[in-house]
Amino acid sequence: MAQKTVVIALGGNALAQPDEEGTIAQQFRHTRESLHAVVELAREGWQIAIVHGNGPQVGNELIRNEQSRHLVPPLPLGVLVAGTEGWIGYMIQQSLQNALRAGGVDRQVVTMVTQVLVDPDDPELRRPTKPIGRTMDEETARGLAAELGGAVAEAKGGWRRVVPSPRPTAIVEREMIRSLVAQGHLVIAAGGGGCPVYEHPRYGLEGVDAVVDKDRAAAILGRDIGADVLVILTDVDRVYRDFGTPEQRAIERLTVDEADELLAGGGLGSGSMAPKLEAAAEFVRRGGTRAIIARLDQGREAVAGQAGTEVVR
Amino acid sequence: MAQKTVVIALGGNALAQPDEEGTIAQQFRHTRESLHAVVELAREGWQIAIVHGNGPQVGNELIRNEQSRHLVPPLPLGVLVAGTEGWIGYMIQQSLQNALRAGGVDRQVVTMVTQVLVDPDDPELRRPTKPIGRTMDEETARGLAAELGGAVAEAKGGWRRVVPSPRPTAIVEREMIRSLVAQGHLVIAAGGGGCPVYEHPRYGLEGVDAVVDKDRAAAILGRDIGADVLVILTDVDRVYRDFGTPEQRAIERLTVDEADELLAGGGLGSGSMAPKLEAAAEFVRRGGTRAIIARLDQGREAVAGQAGTEVVR
Repeated sequence: MAQKTVVIALGGNALAQPDEEGTIAQQFRHTRESLHAVVELAREGWQIAIVHGNGPQVGNELIRNEQSRHLVPPLPLGVLVAGTEGWIGYMIQQSLQNALRAGGVDRQVVTMVTQVLVDPDDPELRRPTKPIGRTMDEETARGLAAELGGAVAEAKGGWRRVVPSPRPTAIVEREMIRSLVAQGHLVIAAGGGGCPVYEHPRYGLEGVDAVVDKDRAAAILGRDIGADVLVILTDVDRVYRDFGTPEQRAIERLTVDEADELLAGGGLGSGSMAPKLEAAAEFVRRGGTRAIIARLDQGREAVAGQAGTEVVR
Repeated sequence: MAQKTVVIALGGNALAQPDEEGTIAQQFRHTRESLHAVVELAREGWQIAIVHGNGPQVGNELIRNEQSRHLVPPLPLGVLVAGTEGWIGYMIQQSLQNALRAGGVDRQVVTMVTQVLVDPDDPELRRPTKPIGRTMDEETARGLAAELGGAVAEAKGGWRRVVPSPRPTAIVEREMIRSLVAQGHLVIAAGGGGCPVYEHPRYGLEGVDAVVDKDRAAAILGRDIGADVLVILTDVDRVYRDFGTPEQRAIERLTVDEADELLAGGGLGSGSMAPKLEAAAEFVRRGGTRAIIARLDQGREAVAGQAGTEVVR
C-alpha cells in the first residue's frame, strides 16, 4: 500500500513566541520543541511536507530593511520572504536532521525555495489589509509606505504598514515537491506562504509585493501533491464556537459545510481562527480526506484522530 | 551513455557589481545576464549544479543587522548565509526557470538550503581573516565585533570585521543533491559557500560563526556528487602569470602540479585568483576530470574547451 501523505503547517509564532525577545537561541529551542510530532510521524512512515510561517521573522526583516535604508538598498517583500524561507528553513532542517538521527529514523530533509502563483486579477491585490512590520506613529508609517511600498492602517497602539494578501492558486515547484515527498524525503516548502509570483505574458514568472497566508499555501500545496491529511498546528487546542465568550465550546469534528456555515455566520468569536478553518475546509473541498487544527504539541495525536478539530467532507 | 555533470560557480560580484548601488532590479538584471551559459549547457543535456557567491549580499545583511540591533535581535552569520541562500537562490531560480522556458528547455530548477561540514579542529577556525561587512573607523569596528562576534582587521580606508573561513570537508545534503542532479534537475546548492556546521558529538549538526569560500564549496560539492567538470565563472577571462605586471601572460591550460607550483611560488601576481585556482586544482585532485576558470559570459565556451584556463591532471 502506498504510504499516506500529510502536510504539516507550523505557525511562525511557534518558533518566535510573542512574549520573548526572539533571539536565535530561543528560536532554535522552540523549533526543536515543535518537531516531536514530525519525528514520530516520520517514524510511522508518513510522507511529509512541512510549511512554516514567518510572521514575526519577516516583521524583523522589514525593520532591518527600514533601519539601514540610508546605507544599503532595501529588499522588496517577496525577496525578504525568500530570505526567511532560507533561514527559517535552515533552522527547521538542521533541527529535524538532528532529531531524526537521535530518534533512529533514517530519512532525509530538504528545504526548497518555493514560489506560489497568484492571480494578477485577484481583487485582494488592490486591497492591502495584511499588517506587516512594527507599530509606529502615523507620520513614520506613511513615510515608510511611500518610500518602501504598501499602504498604512491603524493598529493597536499606532499605525502599521499593510500589504495585499492574495489567494494562492498553485505552487510553482509542485512537481518537484510531490516527487521528493513520494521518495520519502521530508520536504520543507512554501515557507512563510512562499514567494508570491504571477505569470507575466512575456517575461514569465514575476514577483509581487505581497504575502501569502501560510495556511492557505499549505492547503494548496496539499492539493497540488495529492496529500491525504493537512494538519495546522497553532497555539490553541481546538476550534471553538464563540471563542473568548463565557459560552465558548470546543469543536471536535465538523464537515466542510458546517465549517462554511460557521465562517459565514461569524460563530467563531474573537481570535484568528477563521483563516485557519477556511484553509482546512478548502483543503478538504479540493480533494483532501481530512484537515485537523490542533495545538503545536499534539500533532501526532491530531493525525491519529485523538486531538484537535477535524474537518471532513 | 550517462550524461556528464558540471558544477558551475557564479561569483556574488557577478550578481551585484561593485560599481553599482546594488538595487534588487540591478541584481535581477545581472542574474538574468549571467545565466545564458547555464541555459545552453542545459539544452546540451549536461547535468548541472550551480553554486553562487554572496559576498556583497551578506555584507549588506550584516549592515541591516547592525543598524537595527537596538530594535530586533541580530542574526548570527551562519543564519544570514542561509537567508542569502534563500533570496539569491530565489533570484537565480526564477530567472533560470524563465530563461529555460523562453529557450524551450524543459527542465526543472530547485534551490536547496545547504549545510557544509567543517572540521572543528581546523586551525582556520581560530584565525579570523575573512573581511565581512562595511569599512568603519577602528572604534566602531571593535565595538561591533565585541557585540556581534568576530575580530577586526585594518582594511583599505579603515577597519572591517573579520571572521574565520574554514575549509569545507563535505556537503551535508550531498545525497539529495546528487540524486536530483542525476534526475536532470538544475540544482542551486551551497549558495554563499553553504552554512558552515560541524558534528557535535551529542547534539549532531551545529552551526559555526564563519563563512566558507564558495569556490571551495563548489569543488567539494563536485567531488561529493561525482561531477566531471567544475567551471568557476568570474570577471577575468583567464588565469594570468604575473597578473597586473607588464609581463602578465594568460594561461590556457595547466596540470594540477603546475597549478600547485604557481600557487606555492607566488607567480600569480596581484588579484584574487589564488583561491579560485586552488579550488580548481583541489577538484581535479579529488577525482574531477577538469576545472576551468573563465569569464562570466564565456561559460559555454569554457566547458567546450574554447575559453578560460583549464586545470587537468
